[in-house]
Amino acid sequence: MRNFDETTITEAVLARVANAADPRVRAVSEALVRHLHAFVREIEPSFSEWEAAIGFLTGTGALCDDKRQEFILLSDTLGVSMLVDAINHRLPDGATETTVLGPFFVAAAPELPLGADMSPGVEGDPLYVTGSVTDPEGRPITGAIVDTWHSDDDGYYDVQKPAEEEGHFAMRGRFRTDAQGRFHFRTIKPAAYPIPHDGPVGKMLEAQGRHPWRPAHVHFMISAPGYETLVTHIFEEGDRYLDSDAVFGVKDSLIRAWPRHEAGQAPDASTSAVPFHTLTYDFGLKRLD
Amino acid sequence: MRNFDETTITEAVLARVANAADPRVRAVSEALVRHLHAFVREIEPSFSEWEAAIGFLTGTGALCDDKRQEFILLSDTLGVSMLVDAINHRLPDGATETTVLGPFFVAAAPELPLGADMSPGVEGDPLYVTGSVTDPEGRPITGAIVDTWHSDDDGYYDVQKPAEEEGHFAMRGRFRTDAQGRFHFRTIKPAAYPIPHDGPVGKMLEAQGRHPWRPAHVHFMISAPGYETLVTHIFEEGDRYLDSDAVFGVKDSLIRAWPRHEAGQAPDASTSAVPFHTLTYDFGLKRLD
Repeated sequence: MRNFDETTITEAVLARVANAADPRVRAVSEALVRHLHAFVREIEPSFSEWEAAIGFLTGTGALCDDKRQEFILLSDTLGVSMLVDAINHRLPDGATETTVLGPFFVAAAPELPLGADMSPGVEGDPLYVTGSVTDPEGRPITGAIVDTWHSDDDGYYDVQKPAEEEGHFAMRGRFRTDAQGRFHFRTIKPAAYPIPHDGPVGKMLEAQGRHPWRPAHVHFMISAPGYETLVTHIFEEGDRYLDSDAVFGVKDSLIRAWPRHEAGQAPDASTSAVPFHTLTYDFGLKRLD
Repeated sequence: MRNFDETTITEAVLARVANAADPRVRAVSEALVRHLHAFVREIEPSFSEWEAAIGFLTGTGALCDDKRQEFILLSDTLGVSMLVDAINHRLPDGATETTVLGPFFVAAAPELPLGADMSPGVEGDPLYVTGSVTDPEGRPITGAIVDTWHSDDDGYYDVQKPAEEEGHFAMRGRFRTDAQGRFHFRTIKPAAYPIPHDGPVGKMLEAQGRHPWRPAHVHFMISAPGYETLVTHIFEEGDRYLDSDAVFGVKDSLIRAWPRHEAGQAPDASTSAVPFHTLTYDFGLKRLD
């Protein structure tokens, strides 16, 4: 095969990938070629626009390391992450809705006892989080793993901190639900924040006339044997970015009030010398097929 | 806007990028979102397939540096480079056909006098290249810059050589056509070669049941004031990979015999003590609009 023109090249590449041994690889490759070529044919890029696209992808790759994932940011900001999420979570009643994982999950977060302060020494308003994990019929799940993480009140995660603080986990922890399927812990109240926008994704958002902000939220990844792992956030009611989240992650069912309380008795029966906030959410897991 | 499902998320992202100040950025962004979402909706990737895609892009980025361009390889092997080429070169009669740039062009190649040996000391059969550069009416273009580069007879370019040989240009040079629009130089005969396939693109080709080989070729980039810069190759007639070039770059008009001659008088009137090959091509440039 040779002498391809702008219409025959697509058939030629499709014929080539038809040799894939794995039918899924073949199907994905064929779909990729068809849609990618349709995109290119629609926009008719100049040679210098093609060079700019290569440069954009190369710059995006250059920013990725063990602490920053610019390709996940790209997937998130183009709505692809939420689309994949929606496709994979056509949920039954009783299951909590899902949202994006985001680039700041750390698999090795420390397991802490229920009630622990997972942000000791971190500046910010105390936030007491309580909740439960149940099956689709509302029965408690004991021993579910509740992995949780969030930003500080300037909007930065621990993994975004300078190198001298590396390896110091803060504002993240892993808890196990008790015999009644409940969990509780103490932390600080996270703030709305811009996604990292000093790289190619930030430049893309600016060119598209978009802001990089996400409403304040606490991440949860909840797992238990026999259930689909739940990846979601809980957002703060009233946040100004709920309707313009840069990564399209907000769902009404994931919004809760995080009420402010005057100094005094906290939900864990300790006494807070300063005003504090509370957040409660009851999570439902979907049974594995 | 919130509560996106697998159909409404696309409208939401399209509405967001509609704020782009530059109409071209808006058009490209909208097309990207529509085609990318259509691809995702068609293949319905699992979460782990999405993770594999992020890993593929991240691995592709990790291999890019000033000597290797894995994203160009990806564009080439998916037929995107040839599609962009075809869209940009709907050529008039008299203009040479174009093909991919490839990842091995070096902007800073040395300018050499006509007749120079651009591969001194490099092992291989001598190849004497002669040709001309003309306008669409066949009139010679004097002072055209003929940038040329190719692999050695093992299929490697100078920029792929170990670090200790860095900065040593070989098998590449830049010549200027004479008063009759002609050029000639000496080099060695390049071989067919596999594109670098030890990275993500190589793994993709293997999974798709494809070989990574390209037929033997000499690259040319030819420029002159008032004309479109020509990016092309000249392939060797009879090469076994002409019909299965891994990057879809072959066109009949770019194939020539590279005949072998016994030791004796070479085209530059010198005497070759060993057998040698010759290659002749007359290039036509397209006038700028």
